Amino acid sequence: MVVVMQEGAGEKQIQGVIDRLTSLGFDIHRSTGVRHTLLGAVGGDKTGVDPRDLELLDGVHEVIRISTPYKLAGRTFSPQNTIVSVGGVPIGGKNVPLLAGPCSVESEDQMEAIASALAAEGVKLLRGGAFKPRTSPYSFQGLGEAGLKIMRQVADRHGMKVVSEVMDHTEIPMMLNYVDMFQVGARNMQNYILLKELGKVTRPILLKRGPSATIEELLLSAEYILSGGNRDVVLCERGIRTFENYTRNTLDVSAIPVIHKLSHLPIVADPSHGTGLRDKVAPMARASLAAGADGLMIEVHHQPEKALSDGAQALTLPMFQKLMKELRLIAVAVEREVQ
Amino acid sequence: MVVVMQEGAGEKQIQGVIDRLTSLGFDIHRSTGVRHTLLGAVGGDKTGVDPRDLELLDGVHEVIRISTPYKLAGRTFSPQNTIVSVGGVPIGGKNVPLLAGPCSVESEDQMEAIASALAAEGVKLLRGGAFKPRTSPYSFQGLGEAGLKIMRQVADRHGMKVVSEVMDHTEIPMMLNYVDMFQVGARNMQNYILLKELGKVTRPILLKRGPSATIEELLLSAEYILSGGNRDVVLCERGIRTFENYTRNTLDVSAIPVIHKLSHLPIVADPSHGTGLRDKVAPMARASLAAGADGLMIEVHHQPEKALSDGAQALTLPMFQKLMKELRLIAVAVEREVQ
Amino acid sequence: MVVVMQEGAGEKQIQGVIDRLTSLGFDIHRSTGVRHTLLGAVGGDKTGVDPRDLELLDGVHEVIRISTPYKLAGRTFSPQNTIVSVGGVPIGGKNVPLLAGPCSVESEDQMEAIASALAAEGVKLLRGGAFKPRTSPYSFQGLGEAGLKIMRQVADRHGMKVVSEVMDHTEIPMMLNYVDMFQVGARNMQNYILLKELGKVTRPILLKRGPSATIEELLLSAEYILSGGNRDVVLCERGIRTFENYTRNTLDVSAIPVIHKLSHLPIVADPSHGTGLRDKVAPMARASLAAGADGLMIEVHHQPEKALSDGAQALTLPMFQKLMKELRLIAVAVEREVQ
Amino acid sequence: MVVVMQEGAGEKQIQGVIDRLTSLGFDIHRSTGVRHTLLGAVGGDKTGVDPRDLELLDGVHEVIRISTPYKLAGRTFSPQNTIVSVGGVPIGGKNVPLLAGPCSVESEDQMEAIASALAAEGVKLLRGGAFKPRTSPYSFQGLGEAGLKIMRQVADRHGMKVVSEVMDHTEIPMMLNYVDMFQVGARNMQNYILLKELGKVTRPILLKRGPSATIEELLLSAEYILSGGNRDVVLCERGIRTFENYTRNTLDVSAIPVIHKLSHLPIVADPSHGTGLRDKVAPMARASLAAGADGLMIEVHHQPEKALSDGAQALTLPMFQKLMKELRLIAVAVEREVQ
Repeated sequence: MVVVMQEGAGEKQIQGVIDRLTSLGFDIHRSTGVRHTLLGAVGGDKTGVDPRDLELLDGVHEVIRISTPYKLAGRTFSPQNTIVSVGGVPIGGKNVPLLAGPCSVESEDQMEAIASALAAEGVKLLRGGAFKPRTSPYSFQGLGEAGLKIMRQVADRHGMKVVSEVMDHTEIPMMLNYVDMFQVGARNMQNYILLKELGKVTRPILLKRGPSATIEELLLSAEYILSGGNRDVVLCERGIRTFENYTRNTLDVSAIPVIHKLSHLPIVADPSHGTGLRDKVAPMARASLAAGADGLMIEVHHQPEKALSDGAQALTLPMFQKLMKELRLIAVAVEREVQ
Repeated sequence: MVVVMQEGAGEKQIQGVIDRLTSLGFDIHRSTGVRHTLLGAVGGDKTGVDPRDLELLDGVHEVIRISTPYKLAGRTFSPQNTIVSVGGVPIGGKNVPLLAGPCSVESEDQMEAIASALAAEGVKLLRGGAFKPRTSPYSFQGLGEAGLKIMRQVADRHGMKVVSEVMDHTEIPMMLNYVDMFQVGARNMQNYILLKELGKVTRPILLKRGPSATIEELLLSAEYILSGGNRDVVLCERGIRTFENYTRNTLDVSAIPVIHKLSHLPIVADPSHGTGLRDKVAPMARASLAAGADGLMIEVHHQPEKALSDGAQALTLPMFQKLMKELRLIAVAVEREVQ
Repeated sequence: MVVVMQEGAGEKQIQGVIDRLTSLGFDIHRSTGVRHTLLGAVGGDKTGVDPRDLELLDGVHEVIRISTPYKLAGRTFSPQNTIVSVGGVPIGGKNVPLLAGPCSVESEDQMEAIASALAAEGVKLLRGGAFKPRTSPYSFQGLGEAGLKIMRQVADRHGMKVVSEVMDHTEIPMMLNYVDMFQVGARNMQNYILLKELGKVTRPILLKRGPSATIEELLLSAEYILSGGNRDVVLCERGIRTFENYTRNTLDVSAIPVIHKLSHLPIVADPSHGTGLRDKVAPMARASLAAGADGLMIEVHHQPEKALSDGAQALTLPMFQKLMKELRLIAVAVEREVQ
Repeated sequence: MVVVMQEGAGEKQIQGVIDRLTSLGFDIHRSTGVRHTLLGAVGGDKTGVDPRDLELLDGVHEVIRISTPYKLAGRTFSPQNTIVSVGGVPIGGKNVPLLAGPCSVESEDQMEAIASALAAEGVKLLRGGAFKPRTSPYSFQGLGEAGLKIMRQVADRHGMKVVSEVMDHTEIPMMLNYVDMFQVGARNMQNYILLKELGKVTRPILLKRGPSATIEELLLSAEYILSGGNRDVVLCERGIRTFENYTRNTLDVSAIPVIHKLSHLPIVADPSHGTGLRDKVAPMARASLAAGADGLMIEVHHQPEKALSDGAQALTLPMFQKLMKELRLIAVAVEREVQ
């Protein structure tokens, strides 16, 4: 931590701050300049110190945090990229997997129609929602456990793995019977009770960035899971809220290279939620891959016009097949592979 | 709903849209202009229709939703202001109550010191957190039920009512033993499982706006609680996330008059979280009252420099007393009263 | 400046950075911690150094700027509040003046009707636009010099001073014949050519914050004017762009106390542009005064429904009179006066 | 336009609105529903009508604009893509040109070193700033006309075209002697005086999106130029301001496909300003091309650590050469070419 004293701060004020920092276990290095005195505080028990508290001390101008508040999620902890295995399918390696499927599980026929087409394209990770968090209490809320059963059966039939959203910690034991990867939705990114419980599970987690979460907050949420003992966390960029609302959200593509610099965890992009509009999904999927995404989550529906939720952002099967062709070409440019 | 057809849309396309709307139960009124044909769709089962789905129909330029997606929270449902009683203390009437206390319950001594000073100022609603959602897994997480016990005892001693945050639906039954009002934190504003359970409770709810939630989304979250049968919902503006980060959040003061126009529910302002900085709390509390707030939530601590959480945004007791004097003067200008 | 070296940075890397900083004229104070080495750099020619450039040096983790990039606009430069005189009407002192009038000057009859009513309420600063920057090229663009003539005559008749927007530096000499205060519109806040020319003028400037400008950027724009020699700058908060668009902009009321802390310049609020909706203007004007604003800019029109621009955000004369009553009451609470 | 009446609006109110709309030249189509009456208003002189004015009429709930406020910039005006020729180099066709060069022109040696390397990669459009709008009045402000002379000579030597920023309308005549394309910087996007003057010039314009401008506002600014008679406008996405500030701006990659849908004008991406960090430029350049950008603007410097401005976001020559290789591969996937 660096404490910047106000211009003209007196010796008594400076000594007061030094005393406080020392009592917190910091070693102090003092730099006396013409205008400002700086106090470099190294060591100490940083976890319990809120920089704002130090800013309240007499004569302090500003307090600057140096070290990142996350540890296990950071590059320093693990310089090498983490590869997360979802029932044997790796995320974070050379291959860039697709996580595809409908927004909601609606019926076995629907899942079969979609999964068989996806499997034919080499997709190994089947996504689908059984519990749907909906903004309006009057909207379709998902099939629940019945939906998970359908997903499991259909996925098994096609040699696929199941990725589905967990909305509440009480559902975890039940869901362990069906899913290969738990998805934490954007609105639950800071549901710390849920995150803590997922830290105890031996199954990978797909953690979606909240629409107003900074990258640092996303990494801190990952830290909750990692510090519980579960090291298999995949991050997911799915759009942030900005003043521009032609698109539902603004997919923050630059978060991909930023996260690759800050963290060893894989980062997947979700252009379906990131745009909310079907005809923007393919361009943004291509963009995400070109920017270095480790996976792509895409909503696909065989009959989007009849979908019970978010049909407007689902690709049709032919659109998905066309996209796969484009992705395979782009992968070459970034020295990756798309199955 | 109004469907705007593309310029030059053909009769077959127009008829296709009319057929679809009719099948959804809408009555259609067609307006044929020089450039655009408009289809006004009235009646119908609006709840199940996603306007984006209609935008996918052939020849459609844009679909515009007319009616609000919330019902019970809207002014139309109840033209008169709702007054919510918190154990006999009204919110939404002429009197503008203060909800004051520390960020976290730390000890009985702490709560007693703060509550006695607040009670002397006429404050009747005591706030304090027993479960703390913290961004970092390494921060203080609250005393839990022990904290609630302390709050209850201290509040009873001073004739005050208890307002405390519920973080998870499984805690509701336990908390019913201690609290007079459940607070839903900003990060849980769209935790629909929690909202649904609170809809079944016969105790008032303080629902905080999420940092990136629109006013409409806040009202939709209120709708979740109201539609469950609990009509005692108080809204709370506590700052939104913007590009400006000198302050922790930007307190959206204008949300107060906007919500008064759209909804009959009381709206409280929380300038402590809205700014995150002690010296900005009093100006923003005054501003909120002047803009028409029905209550003010203020963090107060007798020793902020020793607070276990968010001390930097807590008022000292003398600062709080000074603020109360200012608020009583401002109340006159808006024909309200502050105790 | 503080340079934070990467964890594990070697002695050679550290020495390289020290050499570079020394060559830039900085004195270096080194703090060697267990994890990080910090280099405090004091003195030096800071103005030419972009911290990002230093971040490119080998082994550097982060570079933190200590001193503010503005000087003349800062509190350190002038601990006492600046009071700006607009033709004898002070802004920044105990009295909080209103700057009121229509969005656009439309005719002498219009200005006379409005100005006479304002003068009767004690308003001394008459605002009105002669050059209108309009988003659409097809909208009314203002009367130009003819409008300024009207304003001047009407203002003189009622003993008022003229505040009007300058859109281009080439208009300054002409406008000097008519206006007592130049307004720089939000979209021109970073029009540096204009700012530089206004720095040479001996007339006060009302500098509006751009809709996406940080407070620091606003102060840097003021610095352009101040460093040119014109010390009579009044800042104006008029709403920032956020994701919430029920209101046109989000009036950042908290900018008022923040700017009072950072700068000695007066800060005025414009709730008319800040909200864009007539019925939100009075609440936000009251809120701004309660938060400490040094002046209030309010759009008023005797016949808003016939206004050529922005009629929707103009107060009617009776609404303005009612607001004045409320403001006089609130002023007491903040130890100010409203005429 | 569609006027939605309040629930329960009376016949007198409805008739009042109809009369007003009729007086504005609209044809009215009335739809009477169970809850709302809708008035579809087609035809009429839309340009002079502010929907907010109609919202003030008695009994009106909401007014919804149907047609876009821009005409010449819209797809309807020109269904086919516009190809803009910059001294013979097309933007908007199959080939995706690079606009590359340093942030600022610093010297002939610098420009020669950079231009010769760029030309060897097939780059035909040389960018460089002679007038630099800087946030701080104490920063390097550019070489002015001397810089333009250098650019022209160096460009001619290598068969390249010159793209440079115009900051003020008074500089246009002088700049016509040197530049092949005028660039309008982000901060000048709504400098309407400048835009109008550029509408009279027979040279192409590169119009950068402001950091807080919506896509619609960008198209309206293009409309200013187009409606003046200059049809050679190229749009440029260069990052918007959001709450995330790890990157300087958030490059809104999705604006590329959105603009392709709404407008016939070419859209270029500027990942250098969009990220502000050298190591993020290549990923975001690849992403922009993959999303369909018609051109890429990249800052390149042979010695970025010595650059007088924005060195931190400039690619080195070897980095640029590597990027070109990647772009050529990605172009195939989107059926484009990069020279």
